[in-house]
Amino acid sequence: MQPLEKNIGIVNVVFGDQVQVVQPVNLYDCTIGNYCFIGPFTEIQSGVVIGDNCRIQSHTFICTGVTIGKECFIGHGVVFVNDDFKIGKPAGNASLWKKITIGNNVSIGSNATVLPVNICDNAVIGAGAVVTKDILIAGTYAGNPAVLIRTLH
Amino acid sequence: MQPLEKNIGIVNVVFGDQVQVVQPVNLYDCTIGNYCFIGPFTEIQSGVVIGDNCRIQSHTFICTGVTIGKECFIGHGVVFVNDDFKIGKPAGNASLWKKITIGNNVSIGSNATVLPVNICDNAVIGAGAVVTKDILIAGTYAGNPAVLIRTLH
Amino acid sequence: MQPLEKNIGIVNVVFGDQVQVVQPVNLYDCTIGNYCFIGPFTEIQSGVVIGDNCRIQSHTFICTGVTIGKECFIGHGVVFVNDDFKIGKPAGNASLWKKITIGNNVSIGSNATVLPVNICDNAVIGAGAVVTKDILIAGTYAGNPAVLIRTLH
Repeated sequence: MQPLEKNIGIVNVVFGDQVQVVQPVNLYDCTIGNYCFIGPFTEIQSGVVIGDNCRIQSHTFICTGVTIGKECFIGHGVVFVNDDFKIGKPAGNASLWKKITIGNNVSIGSNATVLPVNICDNAVIGAGAVVTKDILIAGTYAGNPAVLIRTLH
Repeated sequence: MQPLEKNIGIVNVVFGDQVQVVQPVNLYDCTIGNYCFIGPFTEIQSGVVIGDNCRIQSHTFICTGVTIGKECFIGHGVVFVNDDFKIGKPAGNASLWKKITIGNNVSIGSNATVLPVNICDNAVIGAGAVVTKDILIAGTYAGNPAVLIRTLH
Repeated sequence: MQPLEKNIGIVNVVFGDQVQVVQPVNLYDCTIGNYCFIGPFTEIQSGVVIGDNCRIQSHTFICTGVTIGKECFIGHGVVFVNDDFKIGKPAGNASLWKKITIGNNVSIGSNATVLPVNICDNAVIGAGAVVTKDILIAGTYAGNPAVLIRTLH
């Protein structure tokens, strides 16, 4: 049999001023603020909203349900997760997907994984961290699961 | 010097009915069952067999030696590993690569890493987990290395 | 608004003899030694130097500041990090990025994350490991953060 092949691209995206995008990317039905940079091999899904002056680095996947504030840095290979497999498998129904809110001036290190949580302004997530709980206090978090390793000076 | 450049694509793949593939992908010499979905930026190597009704999400790499059952969800950025560097470096000889068997109705969270193991039916692997040992009892496993965090209700 | 779109490619790369590259890749202003293999969906940034006979597998990101010796294996989805967010966010100035030096005959497992460190000859980094400190003694390191789990026989 032949598969049904689709191609990635930029479809129905609202871009602010002076956004840079490095192809190939898969961006659809999302909103990207002024002066953002979107690296190659990235996917940003429907409904995602990204504030001004953010960098979304290569190989990153941002799922439906994610809102990112201003001045954020999302490293390479970062993956957001909107389904916690609570029923022992994928929810199967988009209405069950969770929200993920990232504040302003948040830096998320490369290869980090962010489950359905809220991350407050000025938080720093270390490279390779797995964020499983809300982050309510600015500081640096690392590990799997991520824990606070340094408060903000 | 000029490098020898090859291009990715779909080469010698046996597809079941109504498979969807989002390009760009690198699929070769593998078998993909009915009603599967294969996301963009994925690579599936020679000899891999994937059962019916599976979703293989973006940025995932499935190496030679992997067999996946039916109704499985493989998240974004999941990587399978068939070589445990037992000799202190890559085996260097494909005959030394290990097998990886994934049962039916298995869900593997995004950015997880799966070493040469067997994973039983109905297992759930958390996002960002590193699976280093066989999983013989259905339940949810997370962490690096992955451990059982919740048995199946 | 329309974004400024750029395309990835191979720009100003010094290749040794008989290098193989699988497109799509994003390689620029770097040096890649003889007989190397570069997999698809990889990015290698300015100033990176890779020695002879290395394999750089798919989905890997190698940042400015990285030097890799000879006979190294860099797995799938490996990400190097040159900025430790010491000021609580990205350094913002390339002069503050750190160096990362990988010796000869080093094997780095898939989905590993390598922060600004030096890794000695013959080291083995397990799949999914997060390397946060210099590795000075040959052996196998795994976990988040990576620790020595086996010395070299």
